[in-house]
Amino acid sequence: MNTVAIAGVGLIGGSFGLALRAAGFGGRIVGVSRPGTVRKAMDRGAIDAGVSLEEAAAEADLLFLSQPVSIILETLEKLGGKLKPGALVTDAGSTKRRICECGVKQLGAGGFLGGHPMAGKETTGVEAAEAELFRGRPWLVTPCVAENMGSAPSPELLMWLKRIGARTVICTPEDHDRWVARSSHLPQMLSTTLAEWLGGREDREAILGAAGPGLGSMTRLAQSSWEIWRDILATNGDYIAEALREFHAELDQTTGTLASGSLEATFHAGADFAARVRKGK
Amino acid sequence: MNTVAIAGVGLIGGSFGLALRAAGFGGRIVGVSRPGTVRKAMDRGAIDAGVSLEEAAAEADLLFLSQPVSIILETLEKLGGKLKPGALVTDAGSTKRRICECGVKQLGAGGFLGGHPMAGKETTGVEAAEAELFRGRPWLVTPCVAENMGSAPSPELLMWLKRIGARTVICTPEDHDRWVARSSHLPQMLSTTLAEWLGGREDREAILGAAGPGLGSMTRLAQSSWEIWRDILATNGDYIAEALREFHAELDQTTGTLASGSLEATFHAGADFAARVRKGK
Repeated sequence: MNTVAIAGVGLIGGSFGLALRAAGFGGRIVGVSRPGTVRKAMDRGAIDAGVSLEEAAAEADLLFLSQPVSIILETLEKLGGKLKPGALVTDAGSTKRRICECGVKQLGAGGFLGGHPMAGKETTGVEAAEAELFRGRPWLVTPCVAENMGSAPSPELLMWLKRIGARTVICTPEDHDRWVARSSHLPQMLSTTLAEWLGGREDREAILGAAGPGLGSMTRLAQSSWEIWRDILATNGDYIAEALREFHAELDQTTGTLASGSLEATFHAGADFAARVRKGK
Repeated sequence: MNTVAIAGVGLIGGSFGLALRAAGFGGRIVGVSRPGTVRKAMDRGAIDAGVSLEEAAAEADLLFLSQPVSIILETLEKLGGKLKPGALVTDAGSTKRRICECGVKQLGAGGFLGGHPMAGKETTGVEAAEAELFRGRPWLVTPCVAENMGSAPSPELLMWLKRIGARTVICTPEDHDRWVARSSHLPQMLSTTLAEWLGGREDREAILGAAGPGLGSMTRLAQSSWEIWRDILATNGDYIAEALREFHAELDQTTGTLASGSLEATFHAGADFAARVRKGK
């Protein structure tokens, strides 16, 4: 792996460049982004140069697409037939079924491997990029065809993911989308629905005036960018709807238990899992 | 106001003592707590001495009950008929209807004024107390009988709340309980239900493995102590059930819109309110 190209040098793409460098990658790292972003990414040391997508395709041994889902799909369409022989394309898209389907169609099962680093922070852009962003965090890797599930895909990529500190999890695109529907997309829907509902109430000023720190954490995700979520909802809506229905039933149970008995067991079980979520971080 | 007594010198009670001192209160501050807590609170400078509840009642001009709701109710029962003439009792209990009812019954409408500082942090105990805990945060004050709503209750207490930086909001116990059911208790139920549900699933290990930072913020509240919430649920269960039913309908609407149209407006409205919650902090 001599040349890595990063398409979309924002928080994730920029951090990937910085992380590779910090982990000892000695090859060339090029970036595909708008001129202003390329300049900032070069200043930060995340990439060595800015190139066009065509140049990246001709030069790179690994192409990392860290863009919103809809742009990844567009980029994959453009890359079909343009890659250097033996090159691998991977991505950081938030959903995997549609991207993997498109990747295999455009690049073949050996040319594309889905990926999703479960890392991020509130500030975006290459300015916020950091070499340690992926350390200790899961990085889901989704081989796109069933026969590739058994063997470790792309040992060289997996080695670099390990070197930058990510905890690699290999799974199918379907499993990925089902899990993140519950671990990430449902929490987003709850946060957004809570904030939208409270903000639309007549007594919203009073509720704001009475808000403690708890409301702050439960509405943090509601600030997420619609541009990102439009793509996620469009490509994982079926599993998200399933998760919403399941949670709905669970909330019914909480409401019933509140009326008829004690929520002590519910609280203890919730506290146990919440502690595990935080320990896993 | 020469002597202030704080019953329950934990995070809130200890911070109140530190805040009064930092704001220039020159009188005596005594604490009612277990011997170990009293010692730590004296070391921190939050109180001058430890006393029994009877001694506090005989000596204090202001008694601040910063205990769990059920203990506040017990303390109010014990204080009936024991106060120094002209003394005022106030509290920091998480719900207000039941406490105000009990306070007026035991101490008369002039002897008790409900209160609820909307401040806190993840660590508890007097070790975590800080003089600045209440600065910029709402402190809800609930006169317990309707005729006291018009005039400013207890100008001296309100002056000290202002001096320690709290944003005083005067409202009825009913309004308080209705607002916090939505701003605080419903968010807690969502966090607990989410964590309990995910933790009970067969694929919980996979979900943990795929968890991003979003799940961390949405399950933070689920770690709250059952001892606190048992009392809140017991004294505000009716309004919490009402809030759960309302949110349930709202979640139905989100699910429907996800299936049939675009959640763009929902996301933007949610982001706007979430920004206001954070600005209000």
